[in-house]
Amino acid sequence: MQFNVERELSHMRETQISSEDIFHGKILHVKKDIIRLPDGSESFREIIRHIGAVCVIPVTENNEVIVERQYRYPIDRVILEIPAGKLDAPDENRLSAVQRELREETGYTADEWTDLGGLYSAPAYSDEYITMYLARGLHRGERHPDEGEFLDVSRVPLADLAQAVMNGEIPDAKTQICILKAARILGI
Amino acid sequence: MQFNVERELSHMRETQISSEDIFHGKILHVKKDIIRLPDGSESFREIIRHIGAVCVIPVTENNEVIVERQYRYPIDRVILEIPAGKLDAPDENRLSAVQRELREETGYTADEWTDLGGLYSAPAYSDEYITMYLARGLHRGERHPDEGEFLDVSRVPLADLAQAVMNGEIPDAKTQICILKAARILGI
Repeated sequence: MQFNVERELSHMRETQISSEDIFHGKILHVKKDIIRLPDGSESFREIIRHIGAVCVIPVTENNEVIVERQYRYPIDRVILEIPAGKLDAPDENRLSAVQRELREETGYTADEWTDLGGLYSAPAYSDEYITMYLARGLHRGERHPDEGEFLDVSRVPLADLAQAVMNGEIPDAKTQICILKAARILGI
Repeated sequence: MQFNVERELSHMRETQISSEDIFHGKILHVKKDIIRLPDGSESFREIIRHIGAVCVIPVTENNEVIVERQYRYPIDRVILEIPAGKLDAPDENRLSAVQRELREETGYTADEWTDLGGLYSAPAYSDEYITMYLARGLHRGERHPDEGEFLDVSRVPLADLAQAVMNGEIPDAKTQICILKAARILGI
């Protein structure tokens, strides 16, 4: 079965009439576009352009996951997340990028990498796309977090994390998806 | 085990020095805040304030899911998603909101609602929080989509959707989470 069907595109597509740059920041590029709807009427879309990102669920031989607890300013909370990071460039090799983020944030390297697909964080208003990986065959090394990055790294059994996701205790979207995918792959 | 640990907050917290309004749109409110990092140095955060949203995975007695195919302008693609929508007000009752969105977008009402927890779409730069529900005991009615909303509604077996998520064919984050949660709850 084909799920990413594009056949409806012709009668559903919205076309750009004009585009205004609202803000060109370090992370966020905000635009407001005037568009034509499929019925011919005009509307607008407020959109975020994002460079893209990668994340990884690193699972040990004992089915423990290397997780991070990190303060997130927009929500004023410390939450549990898997290692992740923005691309350095839109065309950066995503596997190289995720290997760098894992090494810098946790010190771990991995022998086996499995592509878990990607996710759009908020396709109604953002083009952010995060490519997800499962890493196994882990080796511990030295951490090199980015400047201004403060995070606690620890190990938690995947079974406990899957239960926590089901209980609504892991709010980060990419982390929920990778935990549930890894649990399903590993039969946990 | 407690996953939403706040004990690290004191030594990881970033404090606001100043806040600048960049853009106050219909959907997106963009701010740039100057902050103090835990080590005392200054930095900044580009952040999105979002009113919040709800979504629902409606599952029939035959374990089929009511899904939508919708054009998303920021990614110029038609993608498969579960019914969802923004809150009308930050303090709107989320169950009322999700019942309205299900009815308007698909025509369905439901007898049984299960809270599946929430998700932060992109906690590094946005406070958007989506509360997720599982709806069962469905009854079909009339659709009343919002003006400017063009979407195709159909039914797909949950088992096929779970396989599609595992194959990376369902890119929307909230849709992936709800499919995997529903599949885990229903043993599919």
